[in-house]
Amino acid sequence: MAETAQAETKWVYSFGGGGSDGDASLKNLLGGKGANLAEMATLGLPVPPGFTLSTEVCTAYYDLGQAYPAGLRDQVDAALDALEGKTGKVFGDAENPLLVSVRSGARASMPGMMDTVLNLGLSDTTVAGLAAKAGDRFAYDSYRRFIQMYSNVVMGLSHDTFEYILDDHKERQGLDLDTQMTAGDWKDIVSQYKAAVLKELGMPFPDDAREQLWGAISAVFGSWMNDRAILYRKLNDIPQAWGTAVNVQSMVFGNMGESSATGVAFTRDPSTGDPAFYGEFLTNAQGEDVVAGIRTPAPISRQRADELKSDEAPLEEVMPAVYKELVEVANTLEAHYRDMQDIEFTVEDNRLYMLQTRTGKRTAAAALKIAVDMKEDGLITEEEAVLRLEPRQLDQLLHPMISDSAVRDVIVTGLPASPGAAVGEVVFSSDEAARLAEAGRAVILVRIETSPEDIHGMHAAKAIVTARGGMTSHAAVVARGMGRPCVCGAGSLQINYAEGEVRVGGRVVKKGDVITVDGAAGQVLAGSVEMRQPDLSGDFGKLMSWADKVRRLRVRANAETPDDVKVARDFGAEGIGLCRTEHMFFDSTRIPVVRSMILAGTQAGRVDALNKLLPMQRADFLEIFRIMADRPCTIRLLDPPLHEFMPHSENEIEDVAAASGIDPADVRASIDALHESNPMLGHRGCRLGITYPEIYEMQARAIFEAAVAFAKETGQKPEPEVMIPLVATRQEFDILKTVVDRAAAAVFEETGTQLDYLVGTMIELPRAALRAGDIAETAEFFSFGTNDLTQTTLGISRDDAGRFLSAYEAQGIYEKDPFVTIDQDGVGELVRLATERGRAARADIKLGICGEHGGDPASIQFCESIGLNYVSCSPYRVPIARLAAAHAALSHRD
Amino acid sequence: MAETAQAETKWVYSFGGGGSDGDASLKNLLGGKGANLAEMATLGLPVPPGFTLSTEVCTAYYDLGQAYPAGLRDQVDAALDALEGKTGKVFGDAENPLLVSVRSGARASMPGMMDTVLNLGLSDTTVAGLAAKAGDRFAYDSYRRFIQMYSNVVMGLSHDTFEYILDDHKERQGLDLDTQMTAGDWKDIVSQYKAAVLKELGMPFPDDAREQLWGAISAVFGSWMNDRAILYRKLNDIPQAWGTAVNVQSMVFGNMGESSATGVAFTRDPSTGDPAFYGEFLTNAQGEDVVAGIRTPAPISRQRADELKSDEAPLEEVMPAVYKELVEVANTLEAHYRDMQDIEFTVEDNRLYMLQTRTGKRTAAAALKIAVDMKEDGLITEEEAVLRLEPRQLDQLLHPMISDSAVRDVIVTGLPASPGAAVGEVVFSSDEAARLAEAGRAVILVRIETSPEDIHGMHAAKAIVTARGGMTSHAAVVARGMGRPCVCGAGSLQINYAEGEVRVGGRVVKKGDVITVDGAAGQVLAGSVEMRQPDLSGDFGKLMSWADKVRRLRVRANAETPDDVKVARDFGAEGIGLCRTEHMFFDSTRIPVVRSMILAGTQAGRVDALNKLLPMQRADFLEIFRIMADRPCTIRLLDPPLHEFMPHSENEIEDVAAASGIDPADVRASIDALHESNPMLGHRGCRLGITYPEIYEMQARAIFEAAVAFAKETGQKPEPEVMIPLVATRQEFDILKTVVDRAAAAVFEETGTQLDYLVGTMIELPRAALRAGDIAETAEFFSFGTNDLTQTTLGISRDDAGRFLSAYEAQGIYEKDPFVTIDQDGVGELVRLATERGRAARADIKLGICGEHGGDPASIQFCESIGLNYVSCSPYRVPIARLAAAHAALSHRD
Repeated sequence: MAETAQAETKWVYSFGGGGSDGDASLKNLLGGKGANLAEMATLGLPVPPGFTLSTEVCTAYYDLGQAYPAGLRDQVDAALDALEGKTGKVFGDAENPLLVSVRSGARASMPGMMDTVLNLGLSDTTVAGLAAKAGDRFAYDSYRRFIQMYSNVVMGLSHDTFEYILDDHKERQGLDLDTQMTAGDWKDIVSQYKAAVLKELGMPFPDDAREQLWGAISAVFGSWMNDRAILYRKLNDIPQAWGTAVNVQSMVFGNMGESSATGVAFTRDPSTGDPAFYGEFLTNAQGEDVVAGIRTPAPISRQRADELKSDEAPLEEVMPAVYKELVEVANTLEAHYRDMQDIEFTVEDNRLYMLQTRTGKRTAAAALKIAVDMKEDGLITEEEAVLRLEPRQLDQLLHPMISDSAVRDVIVTGLPASPGAAVGEVVFSSDEAARLAEAGRAVILVRIETSPEDIHGMHAAKAIVTARGGMTSHAAVVARGMGRPCVCGAGSLQINYAEGEVRVGGRVVKKGDVITVDGAAGQVLAGSVEMRQPDLSGDFGKLMSWADKVRRLRVRANAETPDDVKVARDFGAEGIGLCRTEHMFFDSTRIPVVRSMILAGTQAGRVDALNKLLPMQRADFLEIFRIMADRPCTIRLLDPPLHEFMPHSENEIEDVAAASGIDPADVRASIDALHESNPMLGHRGCRLGITYPEIYEMQARAIFEAAVAFAKETGQKPEPEVMIPLVATRQEFDILKTVVDRAAAAVFEETGTQLDYLVGTMIELPRAALRAGDIAETAEFFSFGTNDLTQTTLGISRDDAGRFLSAYEAQGIYEKDPFVTIDQDGVGELVRLATERGRAARADIKLGICGEHGGDPASIQFCESIGLNYVSCSPYRVPIARLAAAHAALSHRD
Repeated sequence: MAETAQAETKWVYSFGGGGSDGDASLKNLLGGKGANLAEMATLGLPVPPGFTLSTEVCTAYYDLGQAYPAGLRDQVDAALDALEGKTGKVFGDAENPLLVSVRSGARASMPGMMDTVLNLGLSDTTVAGLAAKAGDRFAYDSYRRFIQMYSNVVMGLSHDTFEYILDDHKERQGLDLDTQMTAGDWKDIVSQYKAAVLKELGMPFPDDAREQLWGAISAVFGSWMNDRAILYRKLNDIPQAWGTAVNVQSMVFGNMGESSATGVAFTRDPSTGDPAFYGEFLTNAQGEDVVAGIRTPAPISRQRADELKSDEAPLEEVMPAVYKELVEVANTLEAHYRDMQDIEFTVEDNRLYMLQTRTGKRTAAAALKIAVDMKEDGLITEEEAVLRLEPRQLDQLLHPMISDSAVRDVIVTGLPASPGAAVGEVVFSSDEAARLAEAGRAVILVRIETSPEDIHGMHAAKAIVTARGGMTSHAAVVARGMGRPCVCGAGSLQINYAEGEVRVGGRVVKKGDVITVDGAAGQVLAGSVEMRQPDLSGDFGKLMSWADKVRRLRVRANAETPDDVKVARDFGAEGIGLCRTEHMFFDSTRIPVVRSMILAGTQAGRVDALNKLLPMQRADFLEIFRIMADRPCTIRLLDPPLHEFMPHSENEIEDVAAASGIDPADVRASIDALHESNPMLGHRGCRLGITYPEIYEMQARAIFEAAVAFAKETGQKPEPEVMIPLVATRQEFDILKTVVDRAAAAVFEETGTQLDYLVGTMIELPRAALRAGDIAETAEFFSFGTNDLTQTTLGISRDDAGRFLSAYEAQGIYEKDPFVTIDQDGVGELVRLATERGRAARADIKLGICGEHGGDPASIQFCESIGLNYVSCSPYRVPIARLAAAHAALSHRD
């Protein structure tokens, strides 16, 4: 039965040469590349014909323990037959051989991560047919490239083996450059390569085209699970289960002389979003040469060449007819797809072929401009425009740039490959970048060029600088995707990895020296340069206003310092969701008073110290009320264990002892007495309020005194929200609500001013979530503290998770870091349950989230799905949360 | 409406004098004392008439903010009228005054915890009426006693005030003893006492009988919430909401000369359970004199007097007729209540009055013997016999006793007040006992006598010794209730609190000296004396076999050392529920190997060390299989964080460095690197298995090799249960199950022996409970690790909870310590949910519990209610768990 069912599955889809089995709507099945090739062929664009093995083959391949499903081989044979018919060539034929490329093509683009084989079908037999068409030298050069690529990608043989043979041959023949090699030289190299394969691997290089094809297909599927692919998916939230398709396409050659070329282009500028056709090309080259950044390509248009002050002639002038056709194709594609396209093309002997189109990756700035422009041109709707900007991309727009007034000591200028600016110390290896970043240091990764092996270092670095490669080089594409500032192709950098230094224009920059990278200007600057805040009006303001129209979730900020509260308000926060009062305790003028309270040992002594803190806290809260004006503020009473306020070094202990008039030994004894085995689960949160109610009493009084002062000052009626942390039982909440209510009543009585206020709690323990029904009988709001709720539900200390969480992610135990994106199956169930139970007990209970998850788009989707009232996040993430809330509302509406 | 409804409530119930409003079935409403007084009166026994204010009055009193419900005063007036009618006396009357006692009476007996007032109704007016009946001296002595008691209990005045006046008077008059005081002396004392009340409190002593009555009633209700009462309830699991009743009863006088007496008796020996009438009495005394232990009372029967070698004449000889009547009453009561009774009586001028009967407290040994005897006499059923023994009482039977062969250096012999034996260092104050016990020291509390203020010290002590007081003194009753060995009334002890020493027979025992207490023999022995295991056959065996017949839950033990496993088996454990493999790692011959594994730094190095551990672990497991034979064993793979195995002192670090050939600085660095902020939530449990699969691989191999060796040795087929700890996700479990399965397959292949086995997990994280459905798809059993589940669900570190958990219990936030009795509302919901989800995914999944709660009777009730398969507890608690499981099954059947 299973056999029969599988035999009926369509695994292989042909495209081009007059018709396609699939189209762009089948992206999940055919991968992005395969679906778009089919779509382009259907649009009548010049696509070399081929066929696609669907992503379901990949899934089946892994489900079956790396074996192919029944029926696949027959379908591939049939597709090959059809392809021979369309091209008039024969696979493996000596006279008119069909040559193909084999490429991966996943649902989401994964640049540089998957393996590709070109010129497949060449052998000692078929090379003659290619030679007859394109000459011996070209044919044998292609053949040796194929052997090298195939042996590496499919058979796992190192490039070094082949480079050694080639270098050795050149040396023996007295040759310097590949261009000096004759057909005979390449022929000789081919046989040496094949001998090397036999020697190194103990098996001959496959001469049979079909054997080659199946080897390449297996290599593509195999590469889905290589480390680079797994890491890329992790960084980009791509599920492993999606799988990749394999595209087998008849070869066209961009390297058959000066009338041939290859290039990539964007229908708009992917860096700025400007509506100018934008791209790069190389004559007499294959596509991989552009992407790999081995030669720096030329600009595609005259305008761009002028902008870059390039000496190279643009495609517009080198091949004017081809350029004109390409511009028409680009316009067709953008209008068809209603979005900016990233296209790959090859020119074989003055004939244009389209090898790929896909929605182009872009910087946040470009995404914003393109979305707003297309909306204003009527190409897309307001809501589509909102959806065109990924919320987490916004990060790039919100961080500081180089200040206009800054003095720039330019070390070198390269290509402005990814915008934004960053300061850090120079490192030359990705491992070191990762190591230092782990230790909390800001680093700039400086490399000759980058490769997929550098992904972890690029992720760890604040910015990336390379000496080689263009705007579409690996470094540029990946840095833009990650939102890292990047300067590419700064060719005058002489990087010496061994010495740990880089020489440029007579100066030496050493490992550890601080530099500043301005990705928008393509500049590398000496030292730490002054930054400025980004511009948040214009297109940004428009798009955010469209987003605000559609979102349902309110967005608040976690902030307590006046600076942070101001930033939050300016970023559009609609309230404070979490004001952590303890942050105010760490102020250098206050910490001595806090310590004297802790050291007091009696309630009377504590009350004395608290009386000194009261006016300070009152002033803090008044300032916050003034900045936020009529927006609601949730203020959390003291949360951390008291030992966090105590000194650790001997010097500090002596100082504290002297200041408090206490023997240092007694201070040390107090600190020892406060020590906890597991402070995260210790004497903190409302447990402090239960044991030292005078602390909460003081804080509540400060809140209400500040609220009354603000009310008298402005005539407004602030409605403070007082939050009791770490509640596990209704009893704790009730006892402490009484303390707060008593303080409120006293202040209202003393001042003759009555204000409304709410008392609520953080739901941050599993028990609180389970007992939410009880607690909501007296609590007027819940704020989900998903940081601690994640720690307790998963039993993972965030501080200690580093030792195993990377192994966990590598083994797919948690799909995403549960401290970044809410673990919906575990923590999420508790949040959902608390929401239901809380609402059942109190229909109008106010519900929000104030953990780190409050600024994470995927978690915001979850918050929308359970109907929370608001999310609260760090000030810089407020716009991200606003946009994510809009996306969530739109996706929820569907 | 509320007023009307309340007015209809019956708050007051009369008893005695020909009829009773209530009976024994109304214990919840009338308290134990009140209900039984009503019942005795109905049985026709001689009960002085009176009335009871119900426990609902107490509840209403606190609900109304310490005020009385409407209608109560009228009902009390009516009951007083009726009482006057029955006694022919008039309350507050000068000629024939009605005097009453006012006593508390809660649902559960709370000896010594609640306050009592006697002789209420005496005043300058009414004292004349009493004098006319019993003489001036008696009347004024009673009056001054009443003033003293009432002023203290109701008005809060210290005893010292009165003692100072009395001492001063005696000194001035040259008197030594109370008996030398004349009526005139007492009259003088009365007026001095009343003057002192006016001076100290600024208000006169109340002369009005009704005012006195309401003062006393309020004092009884008030005492329900005093600290001693709260502590007693906490120690005895009595809910606060039950409240107390108040009994107002007409006075009879045991202190009206040599024809009067007062006493307490048990229908069987409460210490051994022997079916002999057993009691103590004092002539010319009031009841409180017996209980307070101020005079050492005489035995009630000749037989008992002989046993105790007492010189005092027993009641049997002093008042033969009264004795005969008392024995008849005792027999009536035991037959009526079908249980051993604890009775209080007073003889007024040769007339017997019954003041109380209640089910008698007894030692575990007595409970066992009485239950078995009554069952064998046909008085109760087998199941009733099972229910007669409180599971946690069993503890007293299971702990070591003094070895028969031990040499006894007897310091002193007193009364054998509570059985069992213990060794510890002498302390003389309860505060110090509590402090040292907290620090982990074993202490023996030695006091002249104890009072309710000593409860915390008695709880902290391993045993209690007093110089004064009989078998029913405070010390004796409380010690028996707590299961502490106790020697009472060791009158030759000369205790000097100030010097911190006790002199006896020429020797001096100082604070800190080690002594041994043999509570069964009533002996205090010098030094630490050898113990023997208790006898678990005979009655114990019978009762346990009856318990085993009715219980459904299986009982396993948490054990891993051969000694513990043997004890567990001998106590009836039906398997091992938790074998903690890490305990084996701490052995002094192994810890160096374990450390070298941790320090290895490479997988190869770890594997080397693990290969050395393998034969040791295999031998451990083989030994366990041999002891447990065909009973199932659950073996948990390594759980604690690795730093627990590392040394902490500099000396040890040097040793480890030398042994491993590593620089001490490197060892220190390794230890630092292993440090965790919150080890409870750190790199432990299955997280070790995920990061170092070689460790679990070795342990699994050791388990299967041992199982195969055992199978070959015996021909049996052991079925090991391998448990993966700290799982939060199905993925973790699956990855590690693969490791276990691979080890099993390898061992079975190598040995040619195939065995069945189970792989399961501990459910000890909230997420695991929530995802139990997923996990049960591959896990074959769950064992609820409720220690860690409590820590994570409540967010409380057990190690750090001491700082606030006592404040929490005092404020009623957690009714019981959640680490002792499972928090059903929070942790319990997760366990219930995991049970349901686990069973839904795998109908026959084996479910057990292995946290401390597995040996707690209340938690076992919960386990029964959700239908777990087994509980697992420490070896010494196995019999408790078996009995508790039987109770649970019986209560569940109802």
